Order: sequence, then C-alpha cells, then structure tokens
Amino acid sequence: MLVTGKHAVISILRNKILSGDFAPGERLAEIPTAEALGVSRTPVRIAFRQLAQEGLLTKLPRRGYQVRHLNQEDINGSVEVRGVLEGLAARLAAEKGLSEAHQAQLAECLHEGDEIFADGELTDDDVQRYVEMNNTFHSVILEASCNPAIAAALQPNEFLPMASVSAMVFDPKDSAREYRRLLYAHQQHYAVVDALLNRQGARAEALMKEHAHAALVRFDAVRDSSSVKVYRLAGQK
Amino acid sequence: MLVTGKHAVISILRNKILSGDFAPGERLAEIPTAEALGVSRTPVRIAFRQLAQEGLLTKLPRRGYQVRHLNQEDINGSVEVRGVLEGLAARLAAEKGLSEAHQAQLAECLHEGDEIFADGELTDDDVQRYVEMNNTFHSVILEASCNPAIAAALQPNEFLPMASVSAMVFDPKDSAREYRRLLYAHQQHYAVVDALLNRQGARAEALMKEHAHAALVRFDAVRDSSSVKVYRLAGQK
Amino acid sequence: MLVTGKHAVISILRNKILSGDFAPGERLAEIPTAEALGVSRTPVRIAFRQLAQEGLLTKLPRRGYQVRHLNQEDINGSVEVRGVLEGLAARLAAEKGLSEAHQAQLAECLHEGDEIFADGELTDDDVQRYVEMNNTFHSVILEASCNPAIAAALQPNEFLPMASVSAMVFDPKDSAREYRRLLYAHQQHYAVVDALLNRQGARAEALMKEHAHAALVRFDAVRDSSSVKVYRLAGQK
Amino acid sequence: MLVTGKHAVISILRNKILSGDFAPGERLAEIPTAEALGVSRTPVRIAFRQLAQEGLLTKLPRRGYQVRHLNQEDINGSVEVRGVLEGLAARLAAEKGLSEAHQAQLAECLHEGDEIFADGELTDDDVQRYVEMNNTFHSVILEASCNPAIAAALQPNEFLPMASVSAMVFDPKDSAREYRRLLYAHQQHYAVVDALLNRQGARAEALMKEHAHAALVRFDAVRDSSSVKVYRLAGQK
Repeated sequence: MLVTGKHAVISILRNKILSGDFAPGERLAEIPTAEALGVSRTPVRIAFRQLAQEGLLTKLPRRGYQVRHLNQEDINGSVEVRGVLEGLAARLAAEKGLSEAHQAQLAECLHEGDEIFADGELTDDDVQRYVEMNNTFHSVILEASCNPAIAAALQPNEFLPMASVSAMVFDPKDSAREYRRLLYAHQQHYAVVDALLNRQGARAEALMKEHAHAALVRFDAVRDSSSVKVYRLAGQK
Repeated sequence: MLVTGKHAVISILRNKILSGDFAPGERLAEIPTAEALGVSRTPVRIAFRQLAQEGLLTKLPRRGYQVRHLNQEDINGSVEVRGVLEGLAARLAAEKGLSEAHQAQLAECLHEGDEIFADGELTDDDVQRYVEMNNTFHSVILEASCNPAIAAALQPNEFLPMASVSAMVFDPKDSAREYRRLLYAHQQHYAVVDALLNRQGARAEALMKEHAHAALVRFDAVRDSSSVKVYRLAGQK
Repeated sequence: MLVTGKHAVISILRNKILSGDFAPGERLAEIPTAEALGVSRTPVRIAFRQLAQEGLLTKLPRRGYQVRHLNQEDINGSVEVRGVLEGLAARLAAEKGLSEAHQAQLAECLHEGDEIFADGELTDDDVQRYVEMNNTFHSVILEASCNPAIAAALQPNEFLPMASVSAMVFDPKDSAREYRRLLYAHQQHYAVVDALLNRQGARAEALMKEHAHAALVRFDAVRDSSSVKVYRLAGQK
Repeated sequence: MLVTGKHAVISILRNKILSGDFAPGERLAEIPTAEALGVSRTPVRIAFRQLAQEGLLTKLPRRGYQVRHLNQEDINGSVEVRGVLEGLAARLAAEKGLSEAHQAQLAECLHEGDEIFADGELTDDDVQRYVEMNNTFHSVILEASCNPAIAAALQPNEFLPMASVSAMVFDPKDSAREYRRLLYAHQQHYAVVDALLNRQGARAEALMKEHAHAALVRFDAVRDSSSVKVYRLAGQK
C-alpha cells in the first residue's frame, strides 16, 4: 500500500479503529504501525496524538496507546449534549434576531445544500462540501447566539468524530440511504432558518436538538461496514 | 479588622469584588492587599489564585491580578448553559428512572429543605445548609442521568460563583425577599422530584431549565448592596 | 340548614359531589334533593343543569341525573391539555410582544397578588380575589396570543372545575399548605411576565405548561376533606 | 363539463375556493351554481353544507353562502394548536409506552410510506394512499396517549382542510418539490416512532409539534396555482 503524508496515515488509522479492524483495548506502538504502513515514525506519532485528542485512542502511562472502548452510549451522550447546547444557541439567536451578515451566510448554506443534493446522488466531493457547509451553518448559529459560554461548554465534547460537526461518518456503499439521511438534515436546516427568521425561539431550539439526532450514526453499523469513511473539515485533516 | 485564616481572606476579597468595592479593571498586588487586611502574603496569594479560578480576577501576564469586567450578560449566559445541561440530565434521569438510592437522597433533600424553611426565616446556618443540600440535589440528578458528557460540559462554566450551584449569593439585609426566592426554588425541587418519579422527562427538563433562572441574581442589586454575602460549599471555602 | 338562593344550592351540591358525600353513580332527583335542602325545585333544577355542564353530573336519558365517575386521570388529562394550549398562547404572546395595555393588566395582576399574599395568610376574600385576578391573568395571555384557535380548543375542557381557571378548589382547614401552593403559583406569574417582557417564548411556554400542574389538586385529598370549598368567578357563580 | 355525483361537486367547489376562483366575500346561491356545473340542486346543497363545516363558506343569515375570508394567519393558528395537542399526545404515549398493537400499526405506516416513496415520484394513488396512512399514524398516537381530552380539544380546529390531517393540499404541477415535502414528513414519522419506542417523551413531543409545521402549506402558493388539489380521507369525501 502506498501511503503519502500524515493526513493519509491519520485517515487510515481512524478508519481501522472505527471499523473495528483494531479491536477495543488493542495496544498500538509506533514502530510496528509505521512498518505495517510502510511510512516513517513521525507521521504515525502525529496521528496517534491526534487520534487521542479525538477520543479514539487512550495514551498509556508509560508508552504507546490503546484503542478506546467506544460505545453507542458514549456517542449518544455526547450528541445529546451537543443537541441541547446548539438548541440553546438557536433559541437565543432567534430571540435576538439575526444580523444581515448572518442571514446571508445561512442563505448561502441553504443554496449550497440545494446544489449538493440537486442531482439525486452524492459524490465524494459533495460529501466533503457538505461537511464544510454544515460546519459553517452550525458556527454561524453559535456566533449569532452572542453567548460565548455555549462554545466553551461544547469544547469538552468536540473530540468524538461521531459527535462533532467538524467531522462526518459516511458510508459510500449505502449511498441511497446516506443521501436520504443527509437530505433530511439539509431540510432541517431550512426549517431552522425559517424559525430563526420568524423569531420562533422555541421552534428553533427544538429543531436544533432534533437535528443532532439526525446526524447520529448507528455505531454498530459503522463498525460492521468495511466501506465507512470519515470526512473532516479541510483545515483539520 | 481582625482577619483569621485563608478562608476569611478569600471571602472578604470576593465580597469586595462583587460589591464593586474593588472596581472592574483595578489592579491588585499581594503586598498592599496583605497590608490592608493585616495578614501575611501567603493567604492573599492563595485567595488571588482561587478568585482567578472563579472568574472574578484575571491574572496579568507579568505579575499581579486585575478585577474582571463582569456583567449581567456573562452571568445570564452561563446560567442559560447550566439550565439546558441540567435540564438534559433531569430528562434523561426521568426517562431511565431513578434508582432507590437516588430516590432516597432526593427525598432527604426535600425533607431538609422543609426544615430549613419551616420557621419562616433563614439564619446564616440555614443558608449554609441550603447550599449543601442544593448541591447534593443537583449532583444526584447529574449522576442519575448516566451521561458523563453533561458534567464535562458543565465544567468550563463552573467558575462564576453566580452561575454555579456550588456557591450562592445571599443578601441578609433583604431577608424576606430572599426567603421567598429560595422557598420558590425549594418548591421547584418538589416539582422536579414529582416529575422524575412519574417519569415525565419533558416536564423534568423544563423545570430544571427554569430552576436555573430562579437562582439568577440581579448582578446590579448585588453590586449596589453592602450586605451581600457569598455562601460556598464547606469543602470549597 | 338555611339555604338562600340558587348560588348556595349549586355550591352545596358541588361540594357534596367533590367530597364524595354523593357517591359516584348515585342518582339524584329534583324533589328529594329540594326537600333535603329545604328549598323549592327551581334552584335545584338550575343547579343540576349547571353541574352537568361542569362535568360533575351526567343527565340520564329519561329523567334525573347521576353523579359522574370522576377520577384523577380525567382531571390530569384536562390539565395537561390546558397546559399545552396556554403554553402555546404564552409563547406566541412573547414572540409577538405585549401591547402596553396588556403589560399594564399583567402588572396590575402581579401587584394584586402581592397584596393578597402580603400578610402571610389567606382569608375567604383573598381566595375569591385570587380567583378573579388569576382569571384575568390567563385571559390576557390568551388575548395577547392573537390566535383565536387556542380559545376554541380550550372550550371543550372548560367544564371540570378542577381543570379550569374559572374555578379553584381550596381547603381552608389546611391553610398553611394552601397558602404556599398559591404563593408558588403567584411567583410563577412573575416568572411568566418576566419571560413575556423579555420576549423569551420558549421559557414562557414552559412556565405556563408547568403552571397548570401547580394548580393541580390531588383529587383524593379533596374527596377525603370535609372542608374543601370551590371558589368561582363572581359572574359564574 | 360532465360532473358526476356529490363528491365531484364538493371537490370542484372546494378547489374553486382554495384557488381563488371564487373570491373571498363572493355570494353563492344553489340554483346558479347547479346550472353552471350542469347538476341538480341536491348535490350542490350538500356540498355547500360540507364546505361550511370545513370553514370555507359562511352560511348567510337569510339564504345562501359566502366565501370566507381565509388567510394564512388563520391556518397558521390552527396548525400551531394541532401541533401542541398532537405533541402532548406523543409525549404521553412515549411516557406510557406503546402497546404491541400500536407498535405494529405504526410499523405498518412506516412500511407503507417506504412503498409510497420508493420510486422517486408520487402518482395520484400514492397521494391518496399517503393521506390514509398519515391519518392512521396520527390517530394511533392520539389513541396511545390515553387522554381523551386531547381529541376533544382538536375537534373545534378540524374543519380547515389545510390545518387537519384528514385532508391534504397537493400540487401535482410542482411534483418534485411536493415529493420532497412529503418525504420529509415521512422521515419525521420515522423519528417520531424512534422516540416513542425509546420512551423519549420530550423528543416525541418536539417532533410532533414540528411535524405540524412541515405539513403547512403556503396559502398564497395554493391560491396562485391552478393545479392544486385537495385529497381527503376516502370515508369523508
């Protein structure tokens, strides 16, 4: 296998963890991992550190890392937390009213979503574009809440890639179902914007809480699939 | 003024900040503060560090501290965040159902509250007892949610004493009004327990969100009062 | 017993039903009832018709009435319905913003409540005054919602005196507890007005939903008490 | 034009009102209407009575009917009321838990929806089938709430065809957009069932409230379209 650059190393290792290729509890050391991938130790060291930050690896006290015992409950728990915090942000944004700049950014997100879903299927580029658009959408609402305590509270739960908006798990093998899942999320974006523009705080809050559920991936499905991919924000790959 | 021990120093300095005696932006240095209080430098140094953790002082890059520009919006923002997170905890606890141990602890909190409010007024001891009971009440609900991501998300907002359940601002000069404010909060505890026991998740969530508001203190009132006191958990004084 | 006027007859009969003096399923006929009370048939006939409208009696197909099998579930069910409908009204009122006239009426309600609860106990007049004030409070919010469909939906559930705001069950024998119950409801009025003035729709909705619960009377307690009274709006006695 | 049977007459007249062909305020009399349609007076009389019940015509005091001034606000108001009442039903159903029979009926609704949306477009039969399935879905949830006061409260708002689940406005000319609108509603059904099965009352309530919005039709769009059709439950045509 030809592996180039540290991004590729991180991506390969992350998929091995999420897909169960590396079993929970398994110990990983730099040298054998680097040899198995045919790369030098440096990108592996960087990847391990990043995956520990994401909550997928646990650093062992002396040396090396261990694959974390992730389960559906952890992910659900983080997603619920994200839901109520983003719900609060949307409620406050609706009550305060959106600035024109924020209105324009959200309208642009909806427009971009329309383009992404226009031809009835999602290419690799479409999914990457969705991740970027989605991240902008959520950031604008956080910003529009004018409550910095929300972002602070989100921070500790940002690391699980399946509970964060900065990453998305997508299974290209099951593309029809995945298309519908994301189209549904995009239609929720429309409803959120409608609620924000009409100053319906309770409705905006309820929608954002539910929207977090919509993104929720069945962890078992991910683990059992050999084709699952994790898409991340360009700047964070 | 006779000042004994580090707890007294922290308490005096905190009240000077909250009451506006120390103006926002004012710089504080160890030696003059220690001299003004007639104590050694050590308890002052400890107090400064603690007050910085509470969000009342900002550490300056080179040396010394500065009184933070706190405002009502910061406090409201933190209280709203606490509200939705504790609301989530209560909802999950109601949906899962309480263990017998948690039921007993909450019943004990209600019973203790009844005693605290029984004779129509609050002594200093009553308020301290309320803070301990209240903290237990909120901790039990967090625990009963079985979602550790909630406690993690609460952490970054725990430092403002007016937005945390580990401390309470109370004005003994206005004791009739303060009695009613806390009695109302105690009656909300009853409603929360009723909702938890009857597995009414939506109701439990709404009550805990609103309960955070009930504890909300008008910051202006605090600043204008010379009699305000901050009560803290015994272990954290 | 000296009974004067049709209001007294209705009131006596209603209390006999609520207190279980007349058992569920018991048949009531005009002549024996009139004789037992020492009144003519006309006020009894009027009272029966009114109590049937309230949902306490069922008209029998041929002649006479039967005491209805009321239970806690029926009352809870109606109270839940009232809660979500009044919650909706409060949310819409908050989102639209209150007119100055509505603001003034609500402020007057709060002021009147303060007077009612000022001296730490409730006289008979206080309770009657509370019923009138409370009814105004709820009517203003309905009106301020500008959604006539809400009032239409409330109509079918207006008849149970324990689920309506046009009547209140109060037990003078247990006056300390009843004082606290209504003081709590009055403090909720304050929170509702705060939410309305600050355009916090979600909060206003949650408060009104919970407020319906606060008024909820344990039906068993009513039935077991010999001292319970039903207070009604002056115009509807 | 060949018109057969009273159903056809009702349907034609309803579409003329909704599409603005008959202007708001216009008076309608039996004889000229019957002549214009080439039918006898009887089906016209029946249709007028039915359309008055639906809230589209107002009966004039002496004779004849008048086209009602319907507006978006009336429809929104009714839809909001339906939302909170069905939301309450879903919350109670989730808290109580579904019977096996109700679970089976809801699963059947989801399955039928999958079939309806399977081939990417909606025929006339599909839409009619959707109306029947949708009505079953909503009825099951009402029933599962075990709170008859909810159905009673829904009654007064059942008459506007655009605010009721017993009818649906659909525009075959804009079929791609309409397909997405109803697919979104069908995906919400999935989320509602997920919430009910997992006993998530707050989530079920929020979803049903929002679901009412999803069905909301822009009245202006309906009025401006010449192709709009109203589909009704078979038994009520």
